[in-house]
Amino acid sequence: MKYSELSKAELLSLKEKLTAEYEGLKAMGLSLDMSRGKPAPSQVDISDGILTAITDTKDTRGENGVDYRNYGILEGIPEIREMFGNVFGVPAENVIACGNSSLNLMYDAIARAYVFGVPGGKTPWGKQEKLKWLCPVPGYDRHFAICERFGIEMINIEMTPTGPDMDKIEELVANDETIKGMWCVPKYSNPQGITYSDETVRRLANLKPKADDFRIFWDNAYYIHPISKDEKLLNIYEEAHKASNEDIFFEFSSTSKVTYPGGGVSFIFASKNNIDYIKKHMTIQTISFDKIQQLRHVKFFKTPENVIEHMKKHGACLKPKFDAVCETFEKEFTGLGIAEWINPNGGYFISLDIMDGCAKKVHALAKAAGVTLTNAGATYPYGNDPRDRNLRIAPSYPTPEELKKAIGVLCVCVKLAAVEKLLAE
Amino acid sequence: MKYSELSKAELLSLKEKLTAEYEGLKAMGLSLDMSRGKPAPSQVDISDGILTAITDTKDTRGENGVDYRNYGILEGIPEIREMFGNVFGVPAENVIACGNSSLNLMYDAIARAYVFGVPGGKTPWGKQEKLKWLCPVPGYDRHFAICERFGIEMINIEMTPTGPDMDKIEELVANDETIKGMWCVPKYSNPQGITYSDETVRRLANLKPKADDFRIFWDNAYYIHPISKDEKLLNIYEEAHKASNEDIFFEFSSTSKVTYPGGGVSFIFASKNNIDYIKKHMTIQTISFDKIQQLRHVKFFKTPENVIEHMKKHGACLKPKFDAVCETFEKEFTGLGIAEWINPNGGYFISLDIMDGCAKKVHALAKAAGVTLTNAGATYPYGNDPRDRNLRIAPSYPTPEELKKAIGVLCVCVKLAAVEKLLAE
Repeated sequence: MKYSELSKAELLSLKEKLTAEYEGLKAMGLSLDMSRGKPAPSQVDISDGILTAITDTKDTRGENGVDYRNYGILEGIPEIREMFGNVFGVPAENVIACGNSSLNLMYDAIARAYVFGVPGGKTPWGKQEKLKWLCPVPGYDRHFAICERFGIEMINIEMTPTGPDMDKIEELVANDETIKGMWCVPKYSNPQGITYSDETVRRLANLKPKADDFRIFWDNAYYIHPISKDEKLLNIYEEAHKASNEDIFFEFSSTSKVTYPGGGVSFIFASKNNIDYIKKHMTIQTISFDKIQQLRHVKFFKTPENVIEHMKKHGACLKPKFDAVCETFEKEFTGLGIAEWINPNGGYFISLDIMDGCAKKVHALAKAAGVTLTNAGATYPYGNDPRDRNLRIAPSYPTPEELKKAIGVLCVCVKLAAVEKLLAE
Repeated sequence: MKYSELSKAELLSLKEKLTAEYEGLKAMGLSLDMSRGKPAPSQVDISDGILTAITDTKDTRGENGVDYRNYGILEGIPEIREMFGNVFGVPAENVIACGNSSLNLMYDAIARAYVFGVPGGKTPWGKQEKLKWLCPVPGYDRHFAICERFGIEMINIEMTPTGPDMDKIEELVANDETIKGMWCVPKYSNPQGITYSDETVRRLANLKPKADDFRIFWDNAYYIHPISKDEKLLNIYEEAHKASNEDIFFEFSSTSKVTYPGGGVSFIFASKNNIDYIKKHMTIQTISFDKIQQLRHVKFFKTPENVIEHMKKHGACLKPKFDAVCETFEKEFTGLGIAEWINPNGGYFISLDIMDGCAKKVHALAKAAGVTLTNAGATYPYGNDPRDRNLRIAPSYPTPEELKKAIGVLCVCVKLAAVEKLLAE
């Protein structure tokens, strides 16, 4: 029965019961963290072969005979550009293989555009009066933090089951030349796990912004991260070229959730024009990235197909955790009218929408009971969830046992907050 | 006998002899590169232990028990901050250990100041009308390239045997608030191999610029790179603190010429105030750097003392090469009045000043004979050596045999250019 249909007396009795349950959980002195998309130790173990991928100087040369222990090759070693170009469906010459962090690449891309502008643009972003950015919500807090730091005004775009609201996006970018870019996590989106539909990708690839210096930031962080089902995502590189609109996007990814988190290799995929522009500035910024680390990845995986095979092991680690969360939600929330969520087929998160005005409350209740969730509001620009209802669950790090306890606490907190809200109305 | 004292007939006869010699060398079809400070393969071999420093998961944890295979620890692992803090005489908490490139750190430091300003400064650099920078000359082309890219006007400061002209620097920074910074390679400077005297370091540490947002960029690239003699450099960190002027500098270094070039670890050393400011922005830019790579360095070296011991092996590789160049210069140029140089005690370069107006000519002559030197002018801002006389010799990469040939060619080219110049006068 829906909570909203309960009488005041029923709500009061339910509150008493839930409070007792909550106090019991609190007394257990738990300390569980579901706040960040951090792979579990068992997942990290999967990639330990990376430690022994190169142990001999004989293995430090490239196919071309170049000694990768020395300076040079700004754009990364050809072998890894080929391998991950293949994985992402992009020609090797349109790939730059970089250091350990794709977040750093996205930050740098914004900093570069801010100081120097982008190809096709007449003025650096930083020399313009006003800068705006489209942010599908809920979304990734670190994306929003970059915009906020650069003083870029963020506009919320509602997510739908097929991706962000394209009608709204097309209308906004066609009419407002202060809109300079847009965040997209197009596959198994953070935090909802939504994969953009073919139509969404095509409409994005065909976007005709009023601004001459607009870019889609295509953070394909989870492109090869299926858990239950490998969903199909259209290739933005191909679609943008088909649309003769190939400069519209910068695509980013990394192996942080493939090999070691923060200890892998990051990539930029883009049109020739964009790649030339990035390299023109990057060559002033650095001499080269760590080529031995790039070669370690090539020697470890050997083929692009093995990268995909490797990801199945991650999926197998994550599946029982995602199942545990979704099944518990199903069991605890079905029919109550107090929570909505999507069972994602991949990625790192589960997005939970609870009753309006309850997310901060639930975060605080869970925290007090030893369960750390991502901050309420974190999935929205400026940490401001206008309905205060979205919570991001990151089930990857805890063990299944810990996770069950943590989700149990969360469910009680969500119910308690809902009852209190209804009683206050 | 000095070339300038030769008669026209003697010069003509000398020209004939040198031309024949040059043509003979040219006919050998050499292909030798002395253009970049690139360690030789034999030097790179010295650090191959880095490849096997961590081969077992048991070795991926820090002293504190943290698994370095996973996300986190923005400022770098405590072990390496301790180790290289010790080497550079800076407390571990004033060290940030980063990725593979200190050039990237310097670029980022300028980009950060350009967009956001620096502590103490009222306005970001990029929002100010005019930006200027002091550049000791001859200096490092990649430093100058960053300034040029950011539109910062560079002012040449003459180097002296004790470092840059301090009278000039003090006068300029005291009176011109558009001067925002200064490049320094304080030990075995690039390209002259000069180590700043105690007085120079103290005067820099005590600098009182008119600008509220001035920083010394202390690129201590060769601090532990002696060849013939370990010269003493005062510690800018200590001197700036003694002067209660601790925010005046950012210090940078890396292990690129310690372990693998472009495949090591880079560092920032700075006051608490500066470190806090850098971290405040860096935390938006990235989650963490490659901690396994940092830990490899710690496991490879084990102690700070071993870092210093390790550098002796590099010195031993470089010494015969530096000796060959300097001895040949001695033999070929002494008494002729056409060339000046310093025999450096460490670092990576030898700076050769030839007759005014001859450097471009010599570069072209050498190139035509198969010997690639760093571009003439590269050691000056905008590639503009006002006297067109400085050449940077990078003797590290060629073998001693190749080097002997290359220097032979260079000497003939220098003489030929000098004779031609004197004949044209």
